[in-house]
Amino acid sequence: MSAVDTRPLHIAITTGEPAGVGPELTAAALREARERWPSARFTVLGDRDLLTSRAGGAWPAVGDVIEIEHHALAVPAEPGKLNAANGRYVLGLLDAAIDGAVSGRFDAIVTAPLQKSTINDAGVPFTGHTEYLAERTHTPRVVMMLAGSSERPLRVALATTHLPLKDVSAALSIDGLVETLTIIDHDLRAHFGLPAPRILVTGLNPHAGENGYLGREEIDVITPALERARARGIDAPGPYPADTLFQPRYLKDADCVLAMFHDQGLPVLKYATFGEGINVTLGLPIIRASVDHGTALDLAGTGRADPGSMIAAIDAAVTMARHKRSA
Amino acid sequence: MSAVDTRPLHIAITTGEPAGVGPELTAAALREARERWPSARFTVLGDRDLLTSRAGGAWPAVGDVIEIEHHALAVPAEPGKLNAANGRYVLGLLDAAIDGAVSGRFDAIVTAPLQKSTINDAGVPFTGHTEYLAERTHTPRVVMMLAGSSERPLRVALATTHLPLKDVSAALSIDGLVETLTIIDHDLRAHFGLPAPRILVTGLNPHAGENGYLGREEIDVITPALERARARGIDAPGPYPADTLFQPRYLKDADCVLAMFHDQGLPVLKYATFGEGINVTLGLPIIRASVDHGTALDLAGTGRADPGSMIAAIDAAVTMARHKRSA
Repeated sequence: MSAVDTRPLHIAITTGEPAGVGPELTAAALREARERWPSARFTVLGDRDLLTSRAGGAWPAVGDVIEIEHHALAVPAEPGKLNAANGRYVLGLLDAAIDGAVSGRFDAIVTAPLQKSTINDAGVPFTGHTEYLAERTHTPRVVMMLAGSSERPLRVALATTHLPLKDVSAALSIDGLVETLTIIDHDLRAHFGLPAPRILVTGLNPHAGENGYLGREEIDVITPALERARARGIDAPGPYPADTLFQPRYLKDADCVLAMFHDQGLPVLKYATFGEGINVTLGLPIIRASVDHGTALDLAGTGRADPGSMIAAIDAAVTMARHKRSA
Repeated sequence: MSAVDTRPLHIAITTGEPAGVGPELTAAALREARERWPSARFTVLGDRDLLTSRAGGAWPAVGDVIEIEHHALAVPAEPGKLNAANGRYVLGLLDAAIDGAVSGRFDAIVTAPLQKSTINDAGVPFTGHTEYLAERTHTPRVVMMLAGSSERPLRVALATTHLPLKDVSAALSIDGLVETLTIIDHDLRAHFGLPAPRILVTGLNPHAGENGYLGREEIDVITPALERARARGIDAPGPYPADTLFQPRYLKDADCVLAMFHDQGLPVLKYATFGEGINVTLGLPIIRASVDHGTALDLAGTGRADPGSMIAAIDAAVTMARHKRSA
């Protein structure tokens, strides 16, 4: 019997694009850190002066529960004004958080939004947090899953993510879907504490293809993949018509919906979660949660941005880290 | 100045598949006809014995406000048991309702669900109500729009409907989108009483293509179509990312969302309308509304099917007919 690990969970937060709302949302979310997450401590990655200024001059200093790991901006950041000179700063926060999580210093990382163009304009090819995390941790396949807060627990994972709609059909394969389902099943058990996850799977075509009348991918790809996944002990019924699947009578018995593509699953997820959704990357060797919104440049510096999604992301990271530690 | 037309609105209801829930939902919806729709009278098309039996032995007889137009079944219908021998009966109800609407006898028609396979198995090629109505009224282009009830007024129209997902991109054209927007704009004015309809338009690709990075249809097709539609006086902003469009801050100023394809718009519409959605065919010379669910064979004859969508469909037909008459 191993000793119980009683150290506080250590969560890293990357504050993201310095011209965006990340720094102030982090401060707003952490103001009630001791009440909300009594079992956790936080390392906030960012420029100390920037963070203090965006927190209204007073960073939430809750004993030694919250520390700032200072990374210097290249040039001062103005709210709402993107500046490629700070592109490598944004990437540096992410690298430090990933390294700390891989080495075991951090139990999970939470990422505030960044602006892809700031990094690309700094000369670094960058397609998104999810892809960067996969590459940096040498993970061949990751799964993007969006979820509501604990009061609205709908979870939607995607079989394909950011590619043109006309390329979705060709991007689906039996092997790929089986791997995706295996990752979802594993992570829901290991990081979400679900002993027998049930994953409802959509079809690709309208009405899940109507027996081949509206497309054959259900017959040729999705159904064979589900049969193989079920043979591995994964509870993955489907394929179901996406338009009728998101109803309480189906969702009540489900832990996750696997949608075939971005705009099949995310409009309803974001509608259902009222802007308090989170984005989790499954399949990584580390735990990562994120807000599901962008940098909101028009709100940066105003203090009016809603920290709901950031609070939900920290909540998810703490919960996942706790489950992982006790697994 | 023309005389005001004070005749009651005359609504035809086709009771659809005799093995399904259409007959009992029609009876349930009409039980409160005089309270709900005091300005309307109803002609219910179907087999008199079937309707009486499915209404629990007593058809809602509200004075002369509800009449049954008897069409004889070919063979008796058992709840839940499809029988191709009654395929032509189902089509006959629809033909009679369409003819009556075209001739001016009916102000609108409401269609209960039918089973496509029953008609096809009877030897008549049939792809759906919407397509049949278009063909039967010689209408070159119609638009399928789904909507919530009056308490949940989200409306979603589709640029493409029942085709394989991989064919959606090729099915979009500038001319087609301009025609679709023209039909939506016209019908929202003429049949919904909206003097200045605002139609939010989605992109085709994730994040509306991210300036061409995730697909070019927004640049090559959708944006040019919107420019032409706006030059015609149609208020159609976009293209917007579908995953973030369905939020109260955007929807509050909109009368309709035009989605590019079936599973981009309908999962969120059906989630939002809690099974009380309706299906309206725009662009026809006649007014037609429908439930947005199927024949529910497992519930037929039990009296447990929820008439919410049927009530909403009748509501919509009455409202649209009233606006059309006063236009």
